Amino acid sequence: MRIHIIGTGLLGASLGLALSAQKYQVSLEDTSPTAQQLAADLGAGTVSSARLDAEDPQIVVVATPPDVATQTIATALETYPNATVTDVASIKTRLLEAVRELVGEAELSRYIGCHPMAGREKSGAIAARSDLFTARPWVICSDEDTPGSRLGEVVTMAEATGASVIHLDPRIHDAAVAKVSHVPQVVASLVASQLRHAPLEEVALAGQGLRDVTRIAASDPRLWTQILAGNSEEIRSVLLDLRTELDEVITALELGPGSTGALAKAIALGNEGHDRIPGKHGQAPTKYAVVTILVPDTPGTLATLFKDIGDLNINVEDFRMDHAPGQKIGIVDVSVVPATQQELEIGLLSKGWQIPESAIEKEGIA
Amino acid sequence: MRIHIIGTGLLGASLGLALSAQKYQVSLEDTSPTAQQLAADLGAGTVSSARLDAEDPQIVVVATPPDVATQTIATALETYPNATVTDVASIKTRLLEAVRELVGEAELSRYIGCHPMAGREKSGAIAARSDLFTARPWVICSDEDTPGSRLGEVVTMAEATGASVIHLDPRIHDAAVAKVSHVPQVVASLVASQLRHAPLEEVALAGQGLRDVTRIAASDPRLWTQILAGNSEEIRSVLLDLRTELDEVITALELGPGSTGALAKAIALGNEGHDRIPGKHGQAPTKYAVVTILVPDTPGTLATLFKDIGDLNINVEDFRMDHAPGQKIGIVDVSVVPATQQELEIGLLSKGWQIPESAIEKEGIA
Repeated sequence: MRIHIIGTGLLGASLGLALSAQKYQVSLEDTSPTAQQLAADLGAGTVSSARLDAEDPQIVVVATPPDVATQTIATALETYPNATVTDVASIKTRLLEAVRELVGEAELSRYIGCHPMAGREKSGAIAARSDLFTARPWVICSDEDTPGSRLGEVVTMAEATGASVIHLDPRIHDAAVAKVSHVPQVVASLVASQLRHAPLEEVALAGQGLRDVTRIAASDPRLWTQILAGNSEEIRSVLLDLRTELDEVITALELGPGSTGALAKAIALGNEGHDRIPGKHGQAPTKYAVVTILVPDTPGTLATLFKDIGDLNINVEDFRMDHAPGQKIGIVDVSVVPATQQELEIGLLSKGWQIPESAIEKEGIA
Repeated sequence: MRIHIIGTGLLGASLGLALSAQKYQVSLEDTSPTAQQLAADLGAGTVSSARLDAEDPQIVVVATPPDVATQTIATALETYPNATVTDVASIKTRLLEAVRELVGEAELSRYIGCHPMAGREKSGAIAARSDLFTARPWVICSDEDTPGSRLGEVVTMAEATGASVIHLDPRIHDAAVAKVSHVPQVVASLVASQLRHAPLEEVALAGQGLRDVTRIAASDPRLWTQILAGNSEEIRSVLLDLRTELDEVITALELGPGSTGALAKAIALGNEGHDRIPGKHGQAPTKYAVVTILVPDTPGTLATLFKDIGDLNINVEDFRMDHAPGQKIGIVDVSVVPATQQELEIGLLSKGWQIPESAIEKEGIA
């Protein structure tokens, strides 16, 4: 398949690398000749002049910055009258509306918006990676007017990068990323912001809970300002709902003992929402069993621990290390499917690992 | 040292186990004879009748539920006129004020409030563990009227459990736990709550960011209702500040393009607060270098990975696995001190690991 990529920044160049590795014929175009040449030198494809002699590409991918995406998509639909045109912007509804204002219905049926959910802190072709999309969701926004053959081409291309294709209506996509990405970012930033003037003796009490809630608060303000502004209506709608529930908590805290029901409700509603988050690899939510192991914080100890787990032939679903202030002891949580918990605990205890919460060890005591 | 523990639930019984293991002489008392006997049978100490023949204990630890802690502390100060009395409740200011209303200044000087920051989802002596306090912060709230010898006894006892002692004024303690524990809990619950009615196709886009922000939203509503109600003023004060900043974001989202400065500010303030969170083991905040490795999701692979890292004799400061929807490939982030990053990348690349973002690999391409 022949693919033409307009915009050779991080996403465009990475896509070129990924598709070239899969033997796609990729041509590249960028308003910056330097960026275009760099992407080509990295192996992302050939520069656009090589393409002009040949027939139209099957797919044109617009990977420009969001502020010029609309015009670039409209121009591409006109320049390549047989091609399917797609893009990689993270907000879909406004873009589709803006394109609709510039082109006719026939052209619009050749446009299929996409959002590969991949990225890095770094930008530009120099940061491009052929495996940027590997194992990441790639959202495709088509509707009933989208010709099946064009949709099939885009799906094939997306899957060639190693991404997992998800079909969504643009509105549902924007509502979804507001809830699962944009609002969590805003709120993590707000929680972290409250620590700005906290004395060191106060932040010294920070535990894994705070670290998890605020990890993404380290994100880039410039990038996130564009994302938040681009999906402002959906984000605002979710934040208003969240603020209503926040106000109920604040009122309950003010009213005191008689209002603890509202506090319990807030935590219980959080339980309910948390249960909806899918498990690993997009499966239905799974409750894993967590085995907690105390490990000395020295080189090689984790190697021994994971070798011991590997020898048991038990698959680790998740692992996390807790940081204990002032002590050289680490606390490692290993998540496994419940059926393998007992086997894991017996195996590790027999090799001398400390498992403070082991049911097996406790039965031994009682 | 002789220690008397009143209340043999999770914390009291765990403390008894920890101190008995360190050859302390521990006596136990509980309003429930069954709970008292269970703790003694587990090895947490002897029941209180054994103590009555001997001289006063040096320290009495009140480990009852919070709602009876005040009266129990006052009674203990009266019953044991030479003993230092301490407790383990998670809120300190209100408790101190309530005790002050019940006892004279002389008695009050023998009371030293504590908050060992340890716990489990399970409760009762049956869930007790001798290493519950290992590597956890143990806050001690003393003031200038606290006799140094009594303070020294409490510090010695706390350190005997393996905990890390932190001295804090009760008000500072309560303000600190509001910021680093209670408010993050409320906000994580509120973010998760917004997912309650999200269709599965929307939550399918969830990534590691959402998972981290909402992990503690799975917490127990009953426990957290008590904690939130007990520190309501401090929590409310932080939540009001947070709401002011939230309102600025909501307003900026409503006003549109001209107000992106307020969005950038919110994310930037979050950066600033995030930078104040201390690194591992209570040291000053440290920026670790993160090396990202793609790993097949099969048993034993992590063992090999950690063995390879261990062979390089590089200490792993943190590690986390990202869950990719729909794909059997895991993405592991390994944090190390920056000085060892290059050595780690060279070592792992030479053993065939995939490091998509490796600077070394990139130089090889360019």
